[in-house]
Amino acid sequence: MFVTVFLLLVTLCAQGGYGEEIDEAQRPGHVSVVIVGGTGDLAKKYLWQGFFELYVNQVKNGYTFSFYGGGLSPADKATPVLFEILKAVSCSKDVSQERCALLKEQFLRLSQYRQLQSVEDYQDLAKHIEKELQQEGMTEAGRLFYLSVPAFAYADIADKINSSCRPTSGAWLRVVLEKPFGHDFRSAQVLASQLGNSLKDEEMYRIDHYLGKQVVSRILPFREENKKLLDPIWNRHHIERVEIVLKETLDVKGRIPFYDQYGVVRDVLQNHLTEVMTLLTMSLPMNLSSNEEVLRNKLQVFRSLLPVGKNQAVVGQYQEYKTEVQQELNKTKDHISITPTFAAVLMYIDEAQYEGVPILLISGKMLDERVGYSRILFKNDIFCLQNHNSVHCKPKQIVFHFGHGSLEYPAILVSKNLFKPVLMDSEWKEVTKHKDVDVLSLPLSDYYVQTPIVQREAYYELISHIFAGRKNSFISTENLLASWGLWTPLLSSLASTFPRIYPGGAENGDLLDVRIKGKDISYHNEVVIISNDQIGGFQVMQGKFRSSDMVSAWTEELVVRLAADIQEAAEAAVREAGVFHLALSGGSSPLALFQRLTLHHFSFPWRDTHVWMVDERCVPLTDSESNFRNLHDHLLHHVRIPYYNIHPMPVQINQRLCVEEDGGALLYEKEVSKWVNGSSFHFVLLGVGYDSHTASLFPGSKVDGHGESLVALTESPVKPHQRMTLTFSAINRAHKVALLVMGKGKHELITQLSRVKDNPDKWPVTGVKPANGRLVWYIDYDALLG
Amino acid sequence: MFVTVFLLLVTLCAQGGYGEEIDEAQRPGHVSVVIVGGTGDLAKKYLWQGFFELYVNQVKNGYTFSFYGGGLSPADKATPVLFEILKAVSCSKDVSQERCALLKEQFLRLSQYRQLQSVEDYQDLAKHIEKELQQEGMTEAGRLFYLSVPAFAYADIADKINSSCRPTSGAWLRVVLEKPFGHDFRSAQVLASQLGNSLKDEEMYRIDHYLGKQVVSRILPFREENKKLLDPIWNRHHIERVEIVLKETLDVKGRIPFYDQYGVVRDVLQNHLTEVMTLLTMSLPMNLSSNEEVLRNKLQVFRSLLPVGKNQAVVGQYQEYKTEVQQELNKTKDHISITPTFAAVLMYIDEAQYEGVPILLISGKMLDERVGYSRILFKNDIFCLQNHNSVHCKPKQIVFHFGHGSLEYPAILVSKNLFKPVLMDSEWKEVTKHKDVDVLSLPLSDYYVQTPIVQREAYYELISHIFAGRKNSFISTENLLASWGLWTPLLSSLASTFPRIYPGGAENGDLLDVRIKGKDISYHNEVVIISNDQIGGFQVMQGKFRSSDMVSAWTEELVVRLAADIQEAAEAAVREAGVFHLALSGGSSPLALFQRLTLHHFSFPWRDTHVWMVDERCVPLTDSESNFRNLHDHLLHHVRIPYYNIHPMPVQINQRLCVEEDGGALLYEKEVSKWVNGSSFHFVLLGVGYDSHTASLFPGSKVDGHGESLVALTESPVKPHQRMTLTFSAINRAHKVALLVMGKGKHELITQLSRVKDNPDKWPVTGVKPANGRLVWYIDYDALLG
Repeated sequence: MFVTVFLLLVTLCAQGGYGEEIDEAQRPGHVSVVIVGGTGDLAKKYLWQGFFELYVNQVKNGYTFSFYGGGLSPADKATPVLFEILKAVSCSKDVSQERCALLKEQFLRLSQYRQLQSVEDYQDLAKHIEKELQQEGMTEAGRLFYLSVPAFAYADIADKINSSCRPTSGAWLRVVLEKPFGHDFRSAQVLASQLGNSLKDEEMYRIDHYLGKQVVSRILPFREENKKLLDPIWNRHHIERVEIVLKETLDVKGRIPFYDQYGVVRDVLQNHLTEVMTLLTMSLPMNLSSNEEVLRNKLQVFRSLLPVGKNQAVVGQYQEYKTEVQQELNKTKDHISITPTFAAVLMYIDEAQYEGVPILLISGKMLDERVGYSRILFKNDIFCLQNHNSVHCKPKQIVFHFGHGSLEYPAILVSKNLFKPVLMDSEWKEVTKHKDVDVLSLPLSDYYVQTPIVQREAYYELISHIFAGRKNSFISTENLLASWGLWTPLLSSLASTFPRIYPGGAENGDLLDVRIKGKDISYHNEVVIISNDQIGGFQVMQGKFRSSDMVSAWTEELVVRLAADIQEAAEAAVREAGVFHLALSGGSSPLALFQRLTLHHFSFPWRDTHVWMVDERCVPLTDSESNFRNLHDHLLHHVRIPYYNIHPMPVQINQRLCVEEDGGALLYEKEVSKWVNGSSFHFVLLGVGYDSHTASLFPGSKVDGHGESLVALTESPVKPHQRMTLTFSAINRAHKVALLVMGKGKHELITQLSRVKDNPDKWPVTGVKPANGRLVWYIDYDALLG
Repeated sequence: MFVTVFLLLVTLCAQGGYGEEIDEAQRPGHVSVVIVGGTGDLAKKYLWQGFFELYVNQVKNGYTFSFYGGGLSPADKATPVLFEILKAVSCSKDVSQERCALLKEQFLRLSQYRQLQSVEDYQDLAKHIEKELQQEGMTEAGRLFYLSVPAFAYADIADKINSSCRPTSGAWLRVVLEKPFGHDFRSAQVLASQLGNSLKDEEMYRIDHYLGKQVVSRILPFREENKKLLDPIWNRHHIERVEIVLKETLDVKGRIPFYDQYGVVRDVLQNHLTEVMTLLTMSLPMNLSSNEEVLRNKLQVFRSLLPVGKNQAVVGQYQEYKTEVQQELNKTKDHISITPTFAAVLMYIDEAQYEGVPILLISGKMLDERVGYSRILFKNDIFCLQNHNSVHCKPKQIVFHFGHGSLEYPAILVSKNLFKPVLMDSEWKEVTKHKDVDVLSLPLSDYYVQTPIVQREAYYELISHIFAGRKNSFISTENLLASWGLWTPLLSSLASTFPRIYPGGAENGDLLDVRIKGKDISYHNEVVIISNDQIGGFQVMQGKFRSSDMVSAWTEELVVRLAADIQEAAEAAVREAGVFHLALSGGSSPLALFQRLTLHHFSFPWRDTHVWMVDERCVPLTDSESNFRNLHDHLLHHVRIPYYNIHPMPVQINQRLCVEEDGGALLYEKEVSKWVNGSSFHFVLLGVGYDSHTASLFPGSKVDGHGESLVALTESPVKPHQRMTLTFSAINRAHKVALLVMGKGKHELITQLSRVKDNPDKWPVTGVKPANGRLVWYIDYDALLG
């Protein structure tokens, strides 16, 4: 009697909990579970145990089960192996030995090994299941395939399942996959589309086992339950920074053939840490259990993240890694791998809520301790007049402690000087008595601490979520591709980045400490706080090109210099005239410049700067082809410039584009005359096309024939053909003109230009000759030297 | 011989220093120094000593001097008093007793007392000076009047100096004034204009003795010398906050008649702390010794400061103050003064460089220690992977330590993990050996420390600056008025604010600790971190008005509610339609709403919000009368809304305003139709004028006669007459319309409106009747209840 009552209680609790809710549409019935790779390591370590626990909990709810371990080996060889594994499953502590023995016996009876290699094998399995269903007169609830096999086999197995082993009508199919899901955006896309041929998106369950960690799956509910307390502080005005950290002490010995292809970014950051980051920063959905809404809000985070470039990452590699690679990959002593085993990456979300809040994702092997956590560190908003040691003067933080570390158990910690979190999940409790260790610089007694009443393995959690159809705990195709879209450019640049070598363990000392500098990250102890470019010391060459001044350098330094020159011109103009008139070109070259101005020129006098267009394509301003749109998205939207100081070209009048009679060119000319003293811009930034066009003044189009007009409509040889542009009359009135030329592709042009005489009709750029101003060519070494 | 050489050295050193440079245009000759109030407290304590030191240093440079102590008492009574004071002056330690005696004897011989009461007294003084000049055959260099008298006497004395005691042609006149310079903007303006009748601006030297403190006068040179190191970090991306603090242990006993009129804000914050704040935040002038440039850059800071309202200040009063007031002002036991003796004020500079950086100005009497400092605390930009106690993981700060406190000497301190400051001033030295005390939570050994070689009194410094004509060390009229302009609105609201009572001394505990919350400040221990308005609990009444819904509350709560309602509408619209179309009115009522949206609604979906105008005056958009300008400066400039989402009304076309033929109204109507689904705005915010006009739809102008047009040109009875406005057709298509009515002045109108029938021609606002939408009246208690 006691036993029955007890089991009932467990079932009720579990049903009340967050993890056990099952889609109401899901009808009870028979469930076939197939672990493909059922005698492998993962299955042995976690999966069978997880499915046993599922069985124990769900058999009470009217479900029946059969379990299949599948593999390539023939049944006679593999069956004994499988039963060794199955015999090792264990009951939770609360179950009596007697009952446990009974449950295990049932579980073993329901399980069998099957060879799953050919299409026939899958057909046989299907027949077997259907026969059983018929014999027992059971309704089929669904089939669950857990693919615990290398990723290259996924597409083939999915194809066989699809063609030969789909469940009977009305029952669900769920196919569970483990990472890796590709190694970059393209390969992930290929894999997703291959799987998509066999499986519907809702049938795929891509596992990120971090999402099964109890603390990770509490992030959204915690944010929701404490919404009223968090809303006022969960923003850039209060958050100092966010850290998401997974430190490991182990090396990767024995796994090199896999790991060396991946590295820590693909192994940990792209998936686990990125998922945690989205959970922390996404807009809270109205309904936490709406898969669609959660996904939509997650995807919005990816859209809002600023691109992660090589300046936003540092990488390291533990010292022994090199030797391990040489041994495991049979390489010679001079073989070097640059696969990172440590990475720290800095991200920013370009939304008002989080603007400027550094988000650090950090992980590595062979570090001093094993711990996983995420910390939201709040700004110091207290001024303590007298006693700086009072509790309320201390740092404020919320820590999602995933596990291990000095605390040893999973927990959510909130500084006592922040607020007392509410707790509405009956599976969690508040910890009031505990040994006093330090967690992230604060003694545990300075926190409110919440922890799960029963600690559960991530795999068990996820298996129960698969069974419940909770897709939120899995990685959808869109989510996966968005994440790869974010990480792939960084991975490309890291492909040629040498990692810092670290000894491993506590000996690392401060070698891997990192510094945030503006929006960049660097190792702490390789730089002083002033950046090189502030002090000088980079390689910039000054010379002459076509009898004008020329500045040349590697691309990055060239952009640094040009940005500094523009700021200098701006400050001088504002000092003298109270205003700075800057005319900017479209195209891709200035993007690095815009980024530099946005991220490094904090004291640029935008308030007194007017921005004008050098040229525009005849498309609506919001069109992605529009020069203005480009300028807006990469520069204007990121600086505080008054609305009136922005002067897009009026290419659209009377709801039509660049029609001569609408007089757009004249309108812009009048606007220039009205605002700009003598119509002389202080600074005009130009680029040059391969055909030597500049602004939208193209070869062979009588570019010199605009007379005194400052603005004209022109025709481009490439689409969109119609353009509006400043004329040479306007350009050559400017105080300063910069001609920016970058990239190897421009080398031939530069060589030609160095030889030809002025002939603006043939070589339009040779028409740039400021009458009373100064022309400077900014040419990078690629364009100059080829 | 030894003595002479030594004195020469001292003189040379002094000349090389920053404080001793004298305007080159200044010719040597005879200088008459007149201390009006020459036997008063200040003169006795600081001034005569300061002028003695000036004499010792300048007599070597070819100047001759005579000194006059002036006062209202007759000479026979005051002369002995003056000579007692003069005999007490002392030489610096380096001067031999013998030489000191000689110098004092000379000084006494050159000094005399004169009664200075009537015009005749001043005429006599002038005659006396001129006679002496003639007798000795000396050229006059200048006359220096130091007015050490109550401020009410300034104008009269300045008048007498002007009419009767101006120096001979070619010599300078300098009149030195001590605060208070008025007690608010108006009184300061009156005083300035009175003085302006007698003295030129360049003849006035308003003393703020803080500007004579050695560390304060080093702020700009320190910033200049360390420019390359500071530039990358002296901005919002790196500065966590700025604190400017003057803590005093004394009470104001004995000074109550003065102090009770002033309080700590007028006594310390408006002048000393404000000056330090401008020195820390102003743009560095190209030329530190250019008075004009320094002043211009200082004034720019005042222009950029966000207004300081009562939410940006907390005030306190020490417990005994009440009794002291009752005694010294002969008041009864129930008399209460609310003059603050403690204040903490939070400021923000609305420039990209400092945006969002809290600047705290704090001062009080009867605190636990005497200390003055300013701290620039930098953000924590290091992630320490392993050992959080390394030096580089500690806080980074620069401290300008004005004096006293645990350090005891004036110094500039820079965290060693920040940078090693350069030191180009020969009068300063680096301190390398020191007792190890803590300065602002860091041990002194964690800092680089610079200190003056010789500590000098602020008054001596200032007297030497007056003599050198260094106007930067004094408060110009423009500077003074800008400062009062900043502080006066706060002082007005503090006039009805009850200060927190504190016991005084160390017993204050954490009673005066303050918390920064968004852009507001509050005492730490009176509130939990969530603001009331987040939790509910304020008094909002819901009802009906003219058969539509009405929300009513005190002004502040009403605005909180309206802002919340707009955000809710925005979020719902973005969720459903992906976009939110908001039409906003001009006028002054919405300003508080705009401020609320800017400062408290961090997660408002601006990216997906389009802002439209309800109406516009026919003036250029940049005109200060323009509704759009108003909206831009108070809302749009402060949030991150894309350029394309902003829709000003096209009141100016073809360089003329609201000409029917230019078709501006139709243009706007087309723009609305193009962007807004069904031309139905999601939210329209309207106000009501005294004549019951709404939008720009005025009584008696056939407001209903616009037919189906969405936008129309109308005529206002007040200037500027011409308007462009949404019509009732447009307004009544909206999903939600809010009518905001605030202030006692609207009570009569509200009473009338509650009675009248719909009659839009007579009462235009009664024409607001959304066809398929909802109208809500937001009426504050002042307007509702009168």
